[in-house]
Amino acid sequence: MRFLHTADWHVGKNLNGFDLLADQQNVFEQIEGIAQDKQVDGVVIAGDLYDRSIPSEAAVHQLNQELVQLNLVDHLPILAISGNHDSATRLGTGADWFVNESFYLNTTLTDAFRPVTVGDTEFFLLPYFGIQAVRNYFGDDKIHNVNDAMERIVGEMQKNFTPALHHVLVAHFFAAGSERTADSETTIEVGGLSAVATTTLAPFDYVALGHLHNRNALRADRIRYSGSPMKFSVSEAGQEKGVWIIDTVPFNAEWVPLRPAHDIHKIKGTFADLVANSPQQPRDDFYDVELTDHERIPDVLNKLRERYPKIVSLHRTHEARQIDFDHPQTRRQQSPTELLADFYQQTMGIDMTDQQAKWAANALTAIKGEEE
Amino acid sequence: MRFLHTADWHVGKNLNGFDLLADQQNVFEQIEGIAQDKQVDGVVIAGDLYDRSIPSEAAVHQLNQELVQLNLVDHLPILAISGNHDSATRLGTGADWFVNESFYLNTTLTDAFRPVTVGDTEFFLLPYFGIQAVRNYFGDDKIHNVNDAMERIVGEMQKNFTPALHHVLVAHFFAAGSERTADSETTIEVGGLSAVATTTLAPFDYVALGHLHNRNALRADRIRYSGSPMKFSVSEAGQEKGVWIIDTVPFNAEWVPLRPAHDIHKIKGTFADLVANSPQQPRDDFYDVELTDHERIPDVLNKLRERYPKIVSLHRTHEARQIDFDHPQTRRQQSPTELLADFYQQTMGIDMTDQQAKWAANALTAIKGEEE
Repeated sequence: MRFLHTADWHVGKNLNGFDLLADQQNVFEQIEGIAQDKQVDGVVIAGDLYDRSIPSEAAVHQLNQELVQLNLVDHLPILAISGNHDSATRLGTGADWFVNESFYLNTTLTDAFRPVTVGDTEFFLLPYFGIQAVRNYFGDDKIHNVNDAMERIVGEMQKNFTPALHHVLVAHFFAAGSERTADSETTIEVGGLSAVATTTLAPFDYVALGHLHNRNALRADRIRYSGSPMKFSVSEAGQEKGVWIIDTVPFNAEWVPLRPAHDIHKIKGTFADLVANSPQQPRDDFYDVELTDHERIPDVLNKLRERYPKIVSLHRTHEARQIDFDHPQTRRQQSPTELLADFYQQTMGIDMTDQQAKWAANALTAIKGEEE
Repeated sequence: MRFLHTADWHVGKNLNGFDLLADQQNVFEQIEGIAQDKQVDGVVIAGDLYDRSIPSEAAVHQLNQELVQLNLVDHLPILAISGNHDSATRLGTGADWFVNESFYLNTTLTDAFRPVTVGDTEFFLLPYFGIQAVRNYFGDDKIHNVNDAMERIVGEMQKNFTPALHHVLVAHFFAAGSERTADSETTIEVGGLSAVATTTLAPFDYVALGHLHNRNALRADRIRYSGSPMKFSVSEAGQEKGVWIIDTVPFNAEWVPLRPAHDIHKIKGTFADLVANSPQQPRDDFYDVELTDHERIPDVLNKLRERYPKIVSLHRTHEARQIDFDHPQTRRQQSPTELLADFYQQTMGIDMTDQQAKWAANALTAIKGEEE
């Protein structure tokens, strides 16, 4: 059989305040098109369908429509699990009805051991899980980490393997060998979870993973991350996004890239150069800007936005402290001395000398005395 | 055909802080039992399945399980709409799959005009709607109120009537003749909505309404509220809860009462009497208490709770101002003069004289002067 492997849709996510729903709909339609062109027998979505446990109504509406399209209109079987960003309970609504249309959505550990057979393959749909749930399931307190848990889970799944069929695991966790590169995924070490060793996953013909947004985070022939279908942070700017098309016999994994509706670019230069030159990339794309100017440019962010409306972050090469315009409260937490030092640095392009800093501190102390 | 008419489940509602999920599960099981005993051909749920647009995970889990039980286990057709307490989008998740199992859940105005046929009857499932949505649908700005809207909607529905069949409307609004008695329903006049006249609804053989929690709110043979299946406020304490069993041929409406797992009682008496006598009702029921004592009893609420653990409200016959223990902020909004007047009244059992009030006001003014 042939299936499409995708994950980490994060429907409803925004990028530093920019709504991504339209871009997410665009990339969904590309995935739908690929599934049809490649005549797949099923679509695997390996968790994090939503970005939040309580997604917005707009996000719920959009994902609902996408799943209707894929399953009820295109008549594609879907094999999906909940990820750490999803609420298993909320996402699982309707799942008992979905199976009648070959839409298999598993959100519970208990149901992970009963395979779903599509064509020549048994799919084991393992949702994101906490260690304690696995301890409870097996009544075993000696499960210390996620690899212990997976050894027990895989062992239990193997008991249900039909030898004549192929066996695919769909799961959502951090597997050993992964490089942590994306800002988007910060929950991996929460609770002291370690990684799952690829050797633990060896019994499967293929493991379709979700969780890490970079498909290159793990290099193994039969154990792959699809990554997210689009870039969800500046740290993903350099990544190529896409989906895997997996054939079981003979085994083959084909990478099919997805085009971003609006890409994320990292650009660097002086203010004059950045606004004078024609942008090499489309105006409506997302930009991470690094300014190389020494001197302070008043209202620089708004001036840059005239040229690049969707700036998601701004750095200065010659400034120790990054302008964190999304967190103005950082400024409020700075002491008067720190603020003055920053102001001097921005205005003069160099740091205050020790002698200047001393004068400044004395002056501020004197002013403070007068106020009291 | 025969169907069960219920509404206003409000799954996830709490009663002055007391969780009702277990009681709601109990009453659901009674409804399920009645549906089976009466061998109904369908179950109508006329809106407000949830209490909130974003219900808790526990509420989502419970309603999901209840609907699985009713539809997939008991194989009962369900005819349901969203109410004003539901999020149409969230509640509508999965509806496109539900229809394959004769679970008809409509949350959009657009789909209200296409009847669902069960047995000899066409059901028109009209979710709770806003006037503007109706104006948009018909492209008509001259729809001024909910009755105008319903005249247009009913007219449009009539075009789709199959004459040989019976016609039932399932809807969620305030119909004329209703008595507003329940505290639970306070949204009726929001946006200046008026009521729907029963004459507007005359074309239907039966109108299964939700919204008002008291089944006696409207007295019409063919237009009925089922009311909520359990009491959701003290104002509903005197109401009998239940469901309607409706036969289409010959038309018949049978009321089947539901037993509350924990009833709501209004009790009145002196503190001594209330704690000395054996409670006539079960200890674990909910109590609205009216104390007839003149004198102030220290820590009275906690003392009463030893006998009646689930007190939802406490009043005093001889106190102008009710002790609003669920809203301590009310106390904070009182002026020192008001607090002193209350304290005097509670301590002495009588109000201050005008002369005393004057002395008190002067004393408080003097104290305030010293503080400044």
